[in-house]
Amino acid sequence: MLTINAERLLARLQALAQIGRTQEGGVSRRAFSDADLEGRAWFQREVEEAGLLFRKDGAGNLSAILPAADPQARTLLTGSHLDSVPNGGRYDGALGVLCALEALQTIREKGIPMPYHLEAISFTDEEGACIGTFGSLAFSGALGEADLARARLDAAELSAALQRLGLSRESLFDARRDPATLAGYVEVHIEQGSRLEEEQVDIGVVTAIVGIRSYRVRFFGEAAHAGTKPMHKRRDALWGVVQFVARAREMVMQRFTPGVMNCGWVELAPGSFNIVPGRATLALEFRHSSQSLLNEMQQALLDLCAQAAEDNGLQWEAEPLAGTPPAAMHADMMAAVEGAAERLGLSHMRLPSLAGHDARSLSQITPTAMFFVPSVDGISHNPREYTRDEDVINAGNVLLHTLLEVAQVPRVWWE
Amino acid sequence: MLTINAERLLARLQALAQIGRTQEGGVSRRAFSDADLEGRAWFQREVEEAGLLFRKDGAGNLSAILPAADPQARTLLTGSHLDSVPNGGRYDGALGVLCALEALQTIREKGIPMPYHLEAISFTDEEGACIGTFGSLAFSGALGEADLARARLDAAELSAALQRLGLSRESLFDARRDPATLAGYVEVHIEQGSRLEEEQVDIGVVTAIVGIRSYRVRFFGEAAHAGTKPMHKRRDALWGVVQFVARAREMVMQRFTPGVMNCGWVELAPGSFNIVPGRATLALEFRHSSQSLLNEMQQALLDLCAQAAEDNGLQWEAEPLAGTPPAAMHADMMAAVEGAAERLGLSHMRLPSLAGHDARSLSQITPTAMFFVPSVDGISHNPREYTRDEDVINAGNVLLHTLLEVAQVPRVWWE
Repeated sequence: MLTINAERLLARLQALAQIGRTQEGGVSRRAFSDADLEGRAWFQREVEEAGLLFRKDGAGNLSAILPAADPQARTLLTGSHLDSVPNGGRYDGALGVLCALEALQTIREKGIPMPYHLEAISFTDEEGACIGTFGSLAFSGALGEADLARARLDAAELSAALQRLGLSRESLFDARRDPATLAGYVEVHIEQGSRLEEEQVDIGVVTAIVGIRSYRVRFFGEAAHAGTKPMHKRRDALWGVVQFVARAREMVMQRFTPGVMNCGWVELAPGSFNIVPGRATLALEFRHSSQSLLNEMQQALLDLCAQAAEDNGLQWEAEPLAGTPPAAMHADMMAAVEGAAERLGLSHMRLPSLAGHDARSLSQITPTAMFFVPSVDGISHNPREYTRDEDVINAGNVLLHTLLEVAQVPRVWWE
Repeated sequence: MLTINAERLLARLQALAQIGRTQEGGVSRRAFSDADLEGRAWFQREVEEAGLLFRKDGAGNLSAILPAADPQARTLLTGSHLDSVPNGGRYDGALGVLCALEALQTIREKGIPMPYHLEAISFTDEEGACIGTFGSLAFSGALGEADLARARLDAAELSAALQRLGLSRESLFDARRDPATLAGYVEVHIEQGSRLEEEQVDIGVVTAIVGIRSYRVRFFGEAAHAGTKPMHKRRDALWGVVQFVARAREMVMQRFTPGVMNCGWVELAPGSFNIVPGRATLALEFRHSSQSLLNEMQQALLDLCAQAAEDNGLQWEAEPLAGTPPAAMHADMMAAVEGAAERLGLSHMRLPSLAGHDARSLSQITPTAMFFVPSVDGISHNPREYTRDEDVINAGNVLLHTLLEVAQVPRVWWE
């Protein structure tokens, strides 16, 4: 059975983890940072030393290319991202890029004839230093001027950031790839959860990437003296928050699991020990991989807001913020991942991804699959993020065989 | 029946309301501000025109004095404060000072012989631009260097503020009055609540001024990815807050009314839409006029913190902040207020004060009474604060007759 070079993959993961390494043993490779630039330069050297073509597009997405004999062939893509959150982990994103590089290198070394160009890609700024999944949005043609206007970097900061990568605001739109030239996309990633670990399953085949919606919910009551205003006469905005969060939590767990909700930020005004809060603002985010359940969830949550306001004598409003719809993965591509896992004797299960990924962008333009390997204790975006070596190796091998399966490479080449 | 000059009292309230008047019809006479200085100068003129002696002590407390024939007599005090919160109301504090001035002026005009020196006093900075009840703390000898160190103004700002009033840090401690020279203190104030209005009672005789305790309560959970961390595995610090606030609210209303609690400020960390909050900090304040019930309340609230932490897999801590104990009013002085109300045919009831007042400081050194007149809709610290003219006049008359009652002035002088 054809397998990747496991030592080489582990060594590259190790080497990459030194770039932007933090005191706590994690990595900080925020997009456009010095560490990001260093990581990019390192990747280019690795690609070239592996005998693959290196390419950078207008959005700074970096690729290793193994061309097919036929110049007119379509491209089968695989990859992830090299950037990290601040003080994040060593595996998030890095695993997918290095497995992709390793798979291409293995195929090249074996001289397996491929009907597609193979491209191992690292997308720019998946973690959103400027815009979440920035590079893959540009690649899939989904990046618009409106996105740039709402970015976390202002116009001047964005120009400076792009300039560091040798890019410009105009070049971003050149990154768009014609879907007709693409044969599909596969991404491997750590799970960042613990379902695989709990079920003791090797490979998680993603059915869909969650849709995410968020609202800024405001409750309006009446600021009052915290001594002289009797409690039964108060219109305390915090009480709206408390009732809403308590009921929403129960409801989501009972009716919408594995969908989730979170309230990660609250602000009370005037905001003093001795003043009953007259206004409360709450950050509400909720996720589901099913579009219809996401809609149901939204309605049920907004109903609970209304109820919490009414029961506490408050006014309320919910300001919708930018969201992303659920993205279903492609059935044939999912089957290819499952076929690859079975070839390798690995157990697998289907599950939704509760986190967003570059695969969401790609799923809009080409048949896309994504699969997970276990994260110890589900820890992620954290220096303690860890995936065992055997799972890293499984990730590389399943990715390799998924590419071979999609390309329908005859058994003789890989058995 | 002897009564005050109602027109003069209403005219003075009207005149004082022009000093620091705000667009919304309230007043901003923050202590040490230009408006405060203007109010002080106006008060001095009114005192002198009324034929009373004017005095300023080392803490800037301003007094009108009507001396007794016997220079060795003790002093019967009455007063409140002329400063206001920013954009506050026209009655809070001002009513008590102007009723005191009016009562002394009436007694002087009638030539009633008094066994005590009478002193109508306006205490500096009751509202706490620097320190809440600053002037009355200094007067009662309760102001220490530790209070100055914890003040809202730093050392340089405090020096500058004191200098504006012709005072110094050293002079503050000269304001301390020997309790042996005092016969008692009476303060009239607007209720800042709506119990009198609801019960349709003219005069509220304060039994005690609430004790106030506050804590900074912290719940510690685990920050986590708001998508991939299943809800049943989260240790969400907000859930501790939600359970605590919901249960504490019910408990306080059921077991501790008229005691109250408030959570006026909350902060979640890291504080992002897509991160489960790992830490929550909550401002908790609670009040009761009974020391034993305040202790019970504290224990019950801290028990609920512990329960909320345990039920949600959190750690917790409660950092106690500076508080004030309940202050009981003096039985004889309360009886004097009730006797005065009855002379005037006014209805009265006993109630605790849920707000702090200068009377708290005075109660530590001399027999003290406090009484309330109704506030329309209980609104206070607000430009819409309003007390009807008839209640203002009742305030003045009850104060006048309380002084006469305490001094045991024979019926012939006032009937």
